[in-house]
Amino acid sequence: MRNAEATRELILNAAMDEFSTFGIAGARVERIAKTAGFNKNLIYIYFDNKETLFTTVLQKYLDRAFDAIPFTPDDLPDYAGRVFDFAMAHPQLMRLLMWSNLEQRIVNPVERGILHDQKLQKISDAQSSGRVGSTFPPNVLLTTIMTLATAWTVTNPFGPSLDPEATKNLDALKESIARAVTLMVRA
Amino acid sequence: MRNAEATRELILNAAMDEFSTFGIAGARVERIAKTAGFNKNLIYIYFDNKETLFTTVLQKYLDRAFDAIPFTPDDLPDYAGRVFDFAMAHPQLMRLLMWSNLEQRIVNPVERGILHDQKLQKISDAQSSGRVGSTFPPNVLLTTIMTLATAWTVTNPFGPSLDPEATKNLDALKESIARAVTLMVRA
Repeated sequence: MRNAEATRELILNAAMDEFSTFGIAGARVERIAKTAGFNKNLIYIYFDNKETLFTTVLQKYLDRAFDAIPFTPDDLPDYAGRVFDFAMAHPQLMRLLMWSNLEQRIVNPVERGILHDQKLQKISDAQSSGRVGSTFPPNVLLTTIMTLATAWTVTNPFGPSLDPEATKNLDALKESIARAVTLMVRA
Repeated sequence: MRNAEATRELILNAAMDEFSTFGIAGARVERIAKTAGFNKNLIYIYFDNKETLFTTVLQKYLDRAFDAIPFTPDDLPDYAGRVFDFAMAHPQLMRLLMWSNLEQRIVNPVERGILHDQKLQKISDAQSSGRVGSTFPPNVLLTTIMTLATAWTVTNPFGPSLDPEATKNLDALKESIARAVTLMVRA
């Protein structure tokens, strides 16, 4: 017999597929229910509404990303490389983030903002102690790192959609990203 | 009396508002017709279907961008700054590009690919003659420049949605972007 935790998990997995493909407005709870193998009403019992379900899915996969990619303010080029690896291996999460931004219907999970601020503080500390150069402010460094490290995911309009050859050599791309970040943290 | 050109223009302007807000699947030709002040059938006479209308709008606004931002392979930091200015001033175009990518329903306008290849060739020439450093391949430089220069538009999930303070000083951001590109083209 399935317990509540397993039911939640099945619904969240089906929701991830649906939301990453169709976005929030385009997602159909009916299809999520069918994929998960439950009745549509059960989804509303567990998650109230489509928006809550979306935010729960996004938070779940962001948590996984945070766990998988420890932040290393003293080695930002290496961090950028690991963000790159994760982003290339998890295109669905990038799509979720993009939909969320484009549809302007979802508030960022609170935890995301808190972790962002913590990273900024750590970069600032590393700059104060001279382990990271001070040419670029912490927020510029962090946005640059995250943006560059995800630039070759399918969601970037200036990435592989325009330059499909680029992703044939992921090691070379990762090396270039790390090198660009190295230049910035040494400046 | 309105001529065909003026009619087209009114439809395209209304379509830009609709598509940039709702994307392709979410856009309603009915609403575009209402905004433009025409009958829905007239839109289909001019543009066949919603997808053609989207591609036409995207091409039109990309053309404007290409015209407004001459490509200067010998001064890529300055080019990045001008892309930044344009992207911040035209959030609707960034949204169109993002929808197009996310919905995976639209083929890139052919002209966009051609111009992209021309830029790569120009960067390659600048590298051969020593005017641009050779550490980074042309495609990495170009994707980096375009991605960084548009990183603080509302569509980037690692941009202002996470760090709303950043865009309060656009001059400082532009300066940082140009500086990052300078480091890369000198490497």
